[in-house]
Formats: sequence, C-alpha cells, structure tokens
Amino acid sequence: MKFGGTSVASADDIKRAARRIVAARESGKRVVAVLSARGKTTDELVNMAYEISDAPHEREMDMLLSVGERISCALCAMAIHDMGYNAVSLTGSQAGIVTDSVHTKARILEVRADRIRSALDEDKIVLVAGFQGVSGDSRDVTTLGRGGSDTTAVALAAALDASVCEIYTDVEGVFSADPRICPSARKLDVVSFEEMLEMSASGAGVLQHRSVEYARNHGVRIHCRSSFDDTPGTLVVAEDESMEQPMVTAVTHTTNEARVTITGVADEPGIAGRIFGALADANVNVDMIIQNEPVAGDRKADMSFTVSRDELRTATQVIEGLAIGDSVTADENIGKVSIVGAGMKSHPGVAAKVFQTLGDLGINIEMISTSPIKISCVIASDRVPDAVRALHEAFDLGADAVKTEDPTGVHRPTVRS
Amino acid sequence: MKFGGTSVASADDIKRAARRIVAARESGKRVVAVLSARGKTTDELVNMAYEISDAPHEREMDMLLSVGERISCALCAMAIHDMGYNAVSLTGSQAGIVTDSVHTKARILEVRADRIRSALDEDKIVLVAGFQGVSGDSRDVTTLGRGGSDTTAVALAAALDASVCEIYTDVEGVFSADPRICPSARKLDVVSFEEMLEMSASGAGVLQHRSVEYARNHGVRIHCRSSFDDTPGTLVVAEDESMEQPMVTAVTHTTNEARVTITGVADEPGIAGRIFGALADANVNVDMIIQNEPVAGDRKADMSFTVSRDELRTATQVIEGLAIGDSVTADENIGKVSIVGAGMKSHPGVAAKVFQTLGDLGINIEMISTSPIKISCVIASDRVPDAVRALHEAFDLGADAVKTEDPTGVHRPTVRS
Repeated sequence: MKFGGTSVASADDIKRAARRIVAARESGKRVVAVLSARGKTTDELVNMAYEISDAPHEREMDMLLSVGERISCALCAMAIHDMGYNAVSLTGSQAGIVTDSVHTKARILEVRADRIRSALDEDKIVLVAGFQGVSGDSRDVTTLGRGGSDTTAVALAAALDASVCEIYTDVEGVFSADPRICPSARKLDVVSFEEMLEMSASGAGVLQHRSVEYARNHGVRIHCRSSFDDTPGTLVVAEDESMEQPMVTAVTHTTNEARVTITGVADEPGIAGRIFGALADANVNVDMIIQNEPVAGDRKADMSFTVSRDELRTATQVIEGLAIGDSVTADENIGKVSIVGAGMKSHPGVAAKVFQTLGDLGINIEMISTSPIKISCVIASDRVPDAVRALHEAFDLGADAVKTEDPTGVHRPTVRS
Repeated sequence: MKFGGTSVASADDIKRAARRIVAARESGKRVVAVLSARGKTTDELVNMAYEISDAPHEREMDMLLSVGERISCALCAMAIHDMGYNAVSLTGSQAGIVTDSVHTKARILEVRADRIRSALDEDKIVLVAGFQGVSGDSRDVTTLGRGGSDTTAVALAAALDASVCEIYTDVEGVFSADPRICPSARKLDVVSFEEMLEMSASGAGVLQHRSVEYARNHGVRIHCRSSFDDTPGTLVVAEDESMEQPMVTAVTHTTNEARVTITGVADEPGIAGRIFGALADANVNVDMIIQNEPVAGDRKADMSFTVSRDELRTATQVIEGLAIGDSVTADENIGKVSIVGAGMKSHPGVAAKVFQTLGDLGINIEMISTSPIKISCVIASDRVPDAVRALHEAFDLGADAVKTEDPTGVHRPTVRS
C-alpha cells in the first residue's frame, strides 16, 4: 500500500491511512506500506536548501529531502500502535532499497528485503519511507526523484512477491480524460501497462512513469485508488490479463511544454546528434522532434522539438551555445493532446479520426508523434480543453458507450502480410 | 566543534557556523562538527507526534525526532561546499554512534568512527547529526535525550582523540552566576570537570550534565564558547590542569523544582526503599531527601524530597498509590541556590558563610544538601535572585576580586588525620 503526500498531509489524513492499513491487516493480509512526505514538506525542505545555497550540493540535498518521508512513517506507525497493532517504520536504507549513486535521481539496483521479511514474520506492519534508498557504493542516502515513492512501492511489491501494489491517492483511479476539463470522463477499471506508460508519458499524472515501467518489467499488478473511499480504482496489469482491448482507452493532455525551433540548420550528418547529445548532457528531456525536409537545392532545414517548459531556458541556452543554425526561437503557448489505446494497433483509421475531429474545431496541428498505441498532437495551449472534450466525445469514451465493440465505426479489417 | 540549536536556527546562523568550521579547517585543523536541530524544530516534531498520539510510541518518536539534526547537517554541508571545501553530513548511525536500545534516552555504548576517519583522511569536513545513534541490537534509530548533542560531541572527541571539544552556544562560556540575575557575574576561564558536574546538576544550563560526565571519564577537554564572537570561553578540564583552586567558583540556582512531603511515615526499615524505588520505576529523578527523626516514643516521621516540577504530578501519584503515611503535600514555590568550588574541600567555613549570608537577608533555609565541592539550599522561589546576588557578593566572585588567595577570610588549616 502506498500513500501519497495528500493522503498523509494532516494528522487526520495520517490516521485515515493508518485505519486503511489496519483494515487490510485485519482482513488477514500482511501489509507493507510506503509513505510519501506530507503535503508541502518536500517543498519546505527545498526552500530551506535554497536559503543556504543557489546550487545545493546534491548528496546533501538527498540527506535533507529524505527526512520528509521518515516523518510520515514515524507518525503513521504511532497511529497504528494506538490502534493496537505493532508497526515499525523503516528508512529506505533500513528497508534495503539499494540504489546507484546518482544523487537526486538514483535508480534502484536491488531490494534487500530481509529486514522487512523479518518484521512481517514478527507480525508487524511495516512502514517504509518512500522516495529514498542508500547507495550501494558509498552508503550515502539517495533519493529517487520526485514521485519516487511510487517506484519504492512497486519495487518492494516485486521483491516481496506481493499480490498487489495499491497506490492510494487523492483521485479515484485512472480516468478516460482529466475530469476537471472533461466532465464525462469515466474511471477505467483496467488498463494495460503499455497504455499506462503512454498515458503517464503524455500527461496523466496519477502514476509516476518509472514506477509503471518497473511494474511492467517485474509483473507487479498495480491498483490505483482513492485514499478517501473504499470503491475499487483502476487495475494496471499485463495486457493478456486485460479483459477487453478498447481501440482508444483515454485522452491525455499536457499544457506545460514548450517548443524550440532552430531555423537554417545545415542538412549534414551528425547535426541532430550534436543538438540532442548536448541537450541530453544538460539533462533536458526532449519529447517530440520534427525536421523539415530541406527544399531541393537548399542545404538547410528547420528543426523543432518540444521540452518541458521548466527546462526551456536551459534548452535554449544549450542550443545557442552550439551556434548551429540561423536563429533559435521558443514558443511557450503550446499544449499536447494524445489518445492512447492498446486496440489502436489494429485500427488504422484512428489517426484520421483524430485529425478530422481537431480540424472540425479549427484547431491547427503543429506537430504529430505516434506510437503503436498512441497518437499525440501539439496544438495551441488555449485549445487543449476543447480538443480533449471533442476527442473524448468522438471516440465515445464516456461512461455509457464503452462496452460497444467498435463505437467509432472506424474499424476496418487489417491485412496481415 | 558542536553547534547548538540557537547557533543553527536561521540560514544566516548556519552560514556563520559554516564559516567558523571553515576557519578552523583553514587554520590547519581536521574538523568534525556536531549539529543540533535548528531552533524550534524539535518542538515542532514533538507537536506533530502529539497531534497523532497522546503517548507516542518511543521507537517511532526517535525515528521522528532524529530528522531535526539531519536537516541542520545537510544544510551546513551545503554552505561549506559553497565556501569551496568538501563536507559530508552523517547521521548518528552513519557516524558509528552505537547505543543501547532505550529509546528517547539511549546511552552511547561505543563509537565506531571508521567512516569519520576515512572522510577526514579524504580531507573532508565531517558534520555529524547530534542527539542520535543506532541501537547495536536492533539497528533502530535511537536518541540520547534532550541536550544529547553535547554528549555526541564529547563521545566523538574521545573516540577521535581530538585535542579539544568546542561547544558553541549562545552564551560566552560558564559564568560565576547567571548574568541575567547577577550583573556582576564573571565568565570563568577554567573550571574542573567536578565543578562543572556540580554546577550543571544544580542549575547551570550551559552544558548537558551527561556530556560532562562523559568528558571527565574519557579525559576530553571541553571549550565552551560563543558562536557569535571569537573570544575564548570557558575551558572544562581535569582538576590537575586547572591553574588555581578557588574556594568557591560559582553560584548556581534553579527555580523549576518542587517539594513533596509525606507526613506520618512509619519509621520502619524498608520504607524509604519502597518510596524511592517506586519513584525510580516511574523515571522520577529525586534531588534532595530529608527525613525528620521521629520524636522519641513515636514511630512515625515526616519525609520530604524535591523533584523537577514537571515530574511533580507523576511523583505525587506514585506516592499516593503506595498508601504510605498520613498525608502527601506538594510545594511548588521552592527554588534552590548552590555554591560550587573545588577548593571548598579544604575550607570548612564555607557552609557557615552561606547560612549567615542567607540569614542576613531573612531567607529561611528549608532543606540543605552538600557534597565535598557543593552546598545547596532549598529556599522560597521568590527569594532566589536575592540569594544568588548576595552569595556572589559574599564570596567575592565578581570580576575584580577573583585572584586573591582567600577572599572570604574563612580559610582555616585543615587537620589531616
């Protein structure tokens, strides 16, 4: 069971989480719970660091940030003790979460769960501080990056061969679109790992992307559900477990991206490698890339790519430092709308329907990227809500329509060669 | 070097501490610094626990409270890095502070300082989270009790064979009386371990009592000084190192005690053992004890003892539970004034001078206790300031008078048998 920051924010929230944990224990389950830092704790700790230093030392940043989850776990253990059950809180290090030494974004290398197993054998409820581990080399405290508590939970579920990894959050599960902008959005009962990966990569914030990857790689069933009520949420499972393969499962969106365009890039081998190599060295994650074909006779092309808006300044500085092309411009007023669905692989008309839907609204598609189970379009950020609602409607993703076999009418037989 | 809570309270305080540490490093010293939790951090953490539970589980309380010192150390390490020096913060566990398993008041059993030595050999400044360790048995986080950071510092100084243990605080050193109530109080250049132990036991708050015991037992020189300026503070050293043996070194006082009186206690063997055994079992520290001789023919006596005022309620409950004696009364309006001096051993007139001084002021002495180098008197709490000033004056402890060999004129030759 993993409880996020909003699920442990106040004393009442912590007691509510404790009651859920105890209820699971009372139903006969052996429980390991991973807790995030409370509400704004991590932000407060980050602010403390920036009061001291403009560029806080990363090893020390990890030492600092790791305390937030420990506070949550100690408090929740106290609450569980008061309910008559034996609980023990463990730091990431004590829980055996062994990572590499890349401070502030460490990766889990191994889970040595002996101490957790011993505690479970002693009939204890085990609470583990999320988001953190210990470097196998240096024995220093490391953190897994924001949202890393999901990964802690999935990694522990894998190491302990848990029947399920329950991720408790402030929403009821994974939705067919963001309910805040699409009122007809439906809670999904089941999604596949692959769909969830595409959804989290394209804007669904409910589960951390790396934790879904880890779950897929280790076959951990995730149950994403609300910490505020008992209704089932969304199961994230391997594809063959999934009962149906709807053509389109969800519409996702982001409005926190920006586009960088470099004009007059020499059309020579190695140029793209230099650009994106330099961006990778600066830890800038590039999402979409488009390069125009140079006009015949001309040896120059334009290249555009999108990055997270908070990495835009770094990205433009990197590109300007390379002195490639005639000019570098940035557009912060872009958004991205995506449709995701495991059934899309065998439904070739989906892309056409997306383009037609957006076209009918007069929305200009500025960039397109696709995967076998996803189509993403970059559009003006102020048109994103309209686009989400229209696509959700066009693919009949609302509560009443989902069981029909081919609700969109675009299903055509695919020819296998 | 040990920095207390007020020395690391704000970002500026932490940077000031970092500059002092760096200055010591620049003077060629290898530095290990122990930090306390910032200002009110520990109180805030305690409040969080009591929001959850009326009786927080002690193991979890230690897990919770130990984060405060880690925050200080991580932030100070960041500040030192920004000054161009390499620093590394360590938790109590990482620093090898091995304790027993008595949560919230653990005792240090051993210091395994290998990791600190390695870091020093790598030319790093080492910052250690005070007040905490790790249980040798259970590998759980433990804390040493309030003020435990002084003990951490002394224990590390002993283990590392440090030339000195510098305790930085918000006062300039150890004074001949509390300057807040005795304006003529003088900063002491040197006091012996024994004097410091008596002083800390009788109200001088500048050094934690247990840390002085540890320093005496391991021969660690303590330099107690201000974190706000560079002037030397007070050296606490073994007695033979001390240059002079003034008859009286300091006047100390407390106003946070209370007296419990049990009337009509049967004058039988074993009664006192039952009373004080029960109080010890309830973790009540008893300071002074007085039992009146029973009147001839009567088999009953009155017994009084003093305890810290915040333990008064527990103490009276314990005594009432024993159903010993005719009545149990409590007096919260008491204080204690003490004079401490290593030279007192060979000056038998000191007690008489104390009693006379208080008598001249019309102050009634309610209880007396003595050690070879201390005389304590329980008096009405509202007379404590007068008593401190008068005793300070009577024994000429002010700045101008201290070098005279026998300022009081009560020195008489002692006869050795």
